[in-house]
Amino acid sequence: MIEISQLKFDGQGLIPAVVTDFYSKKVLTVAYMNAESLQITLREGKTCFYSRSRSMLWRKGETSGNVQEVVSIKTDCDRDALWIEVIKAGPACHLGTDSCFNEEVFRSETGKDFSLGRLYELISARSELYEHTSK
Amino acid sequence: MIEISQLKFDGQGLIPAVVTDFYSKKVLTVAYMNAESLQITLREGKTCFYSRSRSMLWRKGETSGNVQEVVSIKTDCDRDALWIEVIKAGPACHLGTDSCFNEEVFRSETGKDFSLGRLYELISARSELYEHTSK
Repeated sequence: MIEISQLKFDGQGLIPAVVTDFYSKKVLTVAYMNAESLQITLREGKTCFYSRSRSMLWRKGETSGNVQEVVSIKTDCDRDALWIEVIKAGPACHLGTDSCFNEEVFRSETGKDFSLGRLYELISARSELYEHTSK
Repeated sequence: MIEISQLKFDGQGLIPAVVTDFYSKKVLTVAYMNAESLQITLREGKTCFYSRSRSMLWRKGETSGNVQEVVSIKTDCDRDALWIEVIKAGPACHLGTDSCFNEEVFRSETGKDFSLGRLYELISARSELYEHTSK
């Protein structure tokens, strides 16, 4: 296991964290951690980030309830980025969407074909639709 | 579709790009792009990054042959990060590993149980072992 002291934080003391969904494998968010927020994450088993815009620690789900239970944290060959797999209690995005990544910049022909990820998205969308209409 | 001009590049003109494997859904790399490397990526359909350490454009696989064919590119709610799905021709990491994320910082009990991702890793590892030993 890699210790926090072995990670490379940038000039602002931050390290980017890619948060993915343990079940769907989707990328949910790219957020930033400092050493303290990573310590809190390890201790509490739930993601805690450092908000660059508000210059403060930010326990994900503290107000919304949409906490992220941490399954694994890995670092890369440069030890200057984190990949965090989570099980989320609700939407990852403050806009209420499953993931923060919703806007397309590009999609190849291959990407328009069938994939497990797209099937998962389709089933999830229909499930949400069903829950809304059956109430 | 979002245009390059609508993205938020940082003070150095860069945007972080999370590269994931279209098939395994693994996070392969966190790299950086400037507007020019993103234009090249869109035009050529293969990832081109900006190397912060070498201060130059870096077409992934240019020397190794391990190019990454781009399937999709999405941006997030802040438009300050990219998620790029790729089909890779070989290892994503310069160390020869499938992904750059190989060192664990944390793993919960849930993460030790069965998952599709871990099954995929196991089968891939045994496939590589088989290819090595059967030569």
